[in-house]
Formats: sequence, structure tokens, C-alpha cells
Amino acid sequence: MAEKPASGEDSLIARYFKPIATDPGAFSLVDDVAILKARGEDVVVTTDAIVEGVHYLADDPPDTVARKALRVNLSDLAAKGAAPAGFVLTLALREADHDWLAAFARALGEDARAFDCPLLGGDTVSTPGPVTISITAFGRVPENKMVRRSGAKPGDRVVVTGTIGDAALGLDVLKNGPIAKALAGDPNGREMLIARYRIPQPRNALATAVRDHATAAMDVSDGLAGDLAKLCAASGVSAVIDTPAIPTSATAASLLSRGAVGLEALISGGDDYEILCTVPEASADAFTEAARLAGVAVIAIGTIMAGEDAPRFLDANGEEMSLARLSWSHF
Amino acid sequence: MAEKPASGEDSLIARYFKPIATDPGAFSLVDDVAILKARGEDVVVTTDAIVEGVHYLADDPPDTVARKALRVNLSDLAAKGAAPAGFVLTLALREADHDWLAAFARALGEDARAFDCPLLGGDTVSTPGPVTISITAFGRVPENKMVRRSGAKPGDRVVVTGTIGDAALGLDVLKNGPIAKALAGDPNGREMLIARYRIPQPRNALATAVRDHATAAMDVSDGLAGDLAKLCAASGVSAVIDTPAIPTSATAASLLSRGAVGLEALISGGDDYEILCTVPEASADAFTEAARLAGVAVIAIGTIMAGEDAPRFLDANGEEMSLARLSWSHF
Repeated sequence: MAEKPASGEDSLIARYFKPIATDPGAFSLVDDVAILKARGEDVVVTTDAIVEGVHYLADDPPDTVARKALRVNLSDLAAKGAAPAGFVLTLALREADHDWLAAFARALGEDARAFDCPLLGGDTVSTPGPVTISITAFGRVPENKMVRRSGAKPGDRVVVTGTIGDAALGLDVLKNGPIAKALAGDPNGREMLIARYRIPQPRNALATAVRDHATAAMDVSDGLAGDLAKLCAASGVSAVIDTPAIPTSATAASLLSRGAVGLEALISGGDDYEILCTVPEASADAFTEAARLAGVAVIAIGTIMAGEDAPRFLDANGEEMSLARLSWSHF
Repeated sequence: MAEKPASGEDSLIARYFKPIATDPGAFSLVDDVAILKARGEDVVVTTDAIVEGVHYLADDPPDTVARKALRVNLSDLAAKGAAPAGFVLTLALREADHDWLAAFARALGEDARAFDCPLLGGDTVSTPGPVTISITAFGRVPENKMVRRSGAKPGDRVVVTGTIGDAALGLDVLKNGPIAKALAGDPNGREMLIARYRIPQPRNALATAVRDHATAAMDVSDGLAGDLAKLCAASGVSAVIDTPAIPTSATAASLLSRGAVGLEALISGGDDYEILCTVPEASADAFTEAARLAGVAVIAIGTIMAGEDAPRFLDANGEEMSLARLSWSHF
């Protein structure tokens, strides 16, 4: 065996990430770049970073950190109607913690396979600060077929997938806040909420249905209320939301009915990674059927209205709710 | 004016980055993703992060930080023979420092225009740690024409651009190390070296010549000696380098001749962002002429050899130098 150049950084990459970089465009991570074949389609690009102590907790398990880092990006691709095509990873670490890295890379490889989104390349750097994981993910859509935020039209149904608010409740449980106390006797409920915070379930199975039927779409990452307001602003429309129709888990519904949490916290809490989209009345049945076949729960929660007023949220009595906070912001 | 959703993060993006995101694929940064048109070519992807206090100094001016963050990625595209196509930016900040952000964004926009590499999107997150800037940049090459690390053949000339070692000397000056003292009477020399550290000069003007003539190429980012060893390992070859031929600036040459620095420090210091490539003898004249037309200085410093031994570095007497350190590593 000839003498080979080796540095800590290179051997770290070779040990943990080369085994999961099996796509030919990754060149086994021995080149400086990767190749993404566009195949005549548009390349959709999204980038999201997660920071230890900000987007995840320092004692979150490394496998859930890896999945969250990739899945928050996969969620953007799903909402745009794009098929995953690959991703690059930038990892800023204080030190090479081999147990952490092994678990992180294993889970990342599993998710890359499960979502058919191969690791193409990356950069590993040292930092004196918190672990910071930045992923840029790529998708493919037929030319000019990406679903934007800006296509919603008056009369369209406002639709969301899954359930809203669980992740925000899960974060409260992990921080031992009031929800942890309210669920002291419900370990299964606590675990479900924690899992929803740590491991988003991006709705990539719904991407084709979104592309075929939605006029506008985005993923719900900063809170349903604020994200809907952004979609409406981008589309130049307003909306009316029937808040009792907003889908919640049984655990969240129970907390709501007991008064342990208010609806505002659920719809402004963020980290849902569900799809919010608008579907014309004429396509509603076809969209619902496509979602059923994809195995993704979807439900209409309101209607797009003409005008530029902020979306209105109506309670069970049809009264407009006043929301102090729409979403979560970093600054 | 209707009420619009606004958060600190959104207004920060709108204020500083929307004005420089003029490419149609950026959707004015109001969507979650960007679109990159592949135009029938392969998309080359590279990602590099820089961390405050690791890759740049906390008191480096924000405009040079912005240029360095983008240019280290542009340098990878140049070495692969790719034309810049755009980039996405992830910015992790402790706080929204408006003076810093304004200067950072202005310089980033200037470089994006100068290198025809538009800002397509990004993510802005908060961190309690050092500022961390992660850029993923895209290039285009005709299908299957990307220049890899792995094509070097025995007999090829080993060529580098520009000068080697200045950035490492500049870092020493900024840290007030021995080079700062050796150059106490030479403010112009000090400034030149500092500029070489803070503002890389990526050789994108040479990309077409590299694509047309080089059998293997990479950019020199971690030190010439170690990077050459990586190129040779990827190509399954060895090399002999005539170290007196390695191009140095007049300031570095003077420091070498005075014994203020050794050659080893220059060729293992990193941050050069020059192109290292291998060119067959038959293409050498055409490559040199193309480089002359592109305005990029290139010089042959050695020859690729058969075998898998580590590259050998010969001094002025033809004696092999023993190098303790080949390059810089994070871990």
C-alpha cells in the first residue's frame, strides 16, 4: 500500500460519509464537487440549517438530528411538487465525537435511501460554537411546473396535511414546560409529541398530487397562521379559516378541550412540516383521491378570499379570533 | 396597504438580500425554494462553509468575509471547468447587526455580479456561537465534461496558477506572528499578504482552458503539497515537483531568501485558492496560450509519474525534501 495523504477531516469523511454517498454524482466524495444530472427538468434548490440549542436540543439523539436536518429540506421539495434528487451537507462540529458521528451518518444514510435523496457531497469544518448542520437539497420538476406560493385564487380551498401543533407541544414537553405537567399521566402522548418535534414527517408522497392540483403551496415550518399569511401575501389574496376544522392529534385535541393549551399556540408554534396548499373547487375531489392513494391525510380548513386583508381565523361560533402572534422568528 | 405578515427574519432578508437576488430563479426570495435552469448541461454542485475565528478573523471587515465565503466556492467551480450558475447562502448570526449585514450584502451582491453567479436563495438562522456562513454554489458544464481529480496521467505537466503561500503569510501577519515582525518595514508587502488571505482571487477566467486541456484539476485550498497528494491519489499516480519553480510573490520570495519562512510553510499553508491541474505535453502550448488570453498566470512546476508513491518535492540541488506536514486539517 502506497503512502496516502490523510488528514483528520478526510478520514472522518471517508469513515462516516463515503459509505452513504453511493450516487455516481457524488464521486465517492473524493472530488471537490458533485454532479447533478438535470434530465431535462428544472432543478429546485432549497437550503435550511439547524443549530444545536436553537432548532434542536443539545441532548436530542444524533439519529433524530440527522433526520430532522434532511427532512426539513425534503418538506420544502414536497410542497413545491418536486421529486428529491440529492443533497449536500455542511457540518460544523466542535470535535470529532465518533459515537455521535456514527449514529448521525447511519440515520442520514437511511433517510437518504428512504426518500430517494442521495448524499452528493459536503463540507466538514470545526467550530468553537454549537453544532450547525446546513443542508442544501435538490429536486426535479418538469419545466415550469414548480408550485409557487403565489398562485392562490379566490374560491380555492385551503388544505393542510397531517395534524398541526404537535411539534410545538413536543418541544414544551422536552423543556419540561406546562404541557409536560398536563401530560404527566400520559407517557404515550408525551412520546408522540416529542417524536413529532424531533422527526418531521415530510409529505413527499403528496408531491405529485400537489403539482397536479394545487395553485399555491408551501410547507408549514414557522406556524400555520404566519405561513398562511405569507402564502396569501405572495398570492395577493386573503383567506377565511374555520379553526375547528384545523386537524389536531387526539393528544392535542384533549389538551385543547381541557384548556391546557390554546389554539393560538398550536397554529403559531412552528416545526409542523406539513403541507399548506390551495386547491380549486373543481380539482378538490381529484386532489383528495390522489392524497388517499398517496396515504397522506388532507383536510380543507378554509377558503381563499379576494382582497389583501390578513387571513381571518373564525372560532366555532363564527367569531373572528384575535391572534397576538402568527409565527416564530429568529430575530 | 393591507396588513402584511412580518417577522424579524423576513424583514432582514427583504432588506439586505432581496435587492441582490435579481435572478428570475430566485423569485425575489419570497418562495421557499429557487429554480436553477440546467439548459441541457450538467449541474456542478459545491459547498463550503466559513466560520468566524476559524476561516476568517472576528475583526475581518464584513465585505471581505462576504467575498471570501462566495469566492472559495467559485474557486471550486473554476477548477472543475464549470461556469458559475448561482448560489444559495445560509447565514447563522448571533444578532442582526445592521451595519455588518449592509456591508456584507453589498459586497456579496457586487461579487455575484462580477462573477455572474446570482444569489438564488438562502436561510438565515440565529446561533449563540460564531457567525457561520455556508454557501452552496452551482455551475454548468457540457454533459460529462467536468474535470475531475482523477484523470492525471504519467508524463502530464503539473501546473499551478498565480502564486502560492501568500494567504498563509497574510494570516500570520494578521495574528501578529513572526512574518508580521519580519515585514515591520514593508507595509505594502503586509497589505498584499493580508489581502491575499481575506479576498481570494478565484481563477474562473481559466475555467474554459482547464476544461479544454486539463486531465485533472482541483483548487488549492488546504496547501499545495497536500492537495497535490490528493490529486495524485485520486488519479493513481505520483509526481515529482521542482520546488524552485513553485511561483511565489516578490514578498514571499524575499522572506524565503532571508530565511524568515521556509518553503514547507508556503506549500502546506492553505487558503491559496489557485488552480492545480495536469496538462498533457501535447496540449501544453495551447493551454499556456489560452491562459495568456484569459489573463491568468500559469506555470509548470513538475511532472506526473507512474506509481503510487507520494509526490516528491526536489530542492534546487535535486535533493528530495522531507515534509513533516502536507496540509491543514480541521480535526
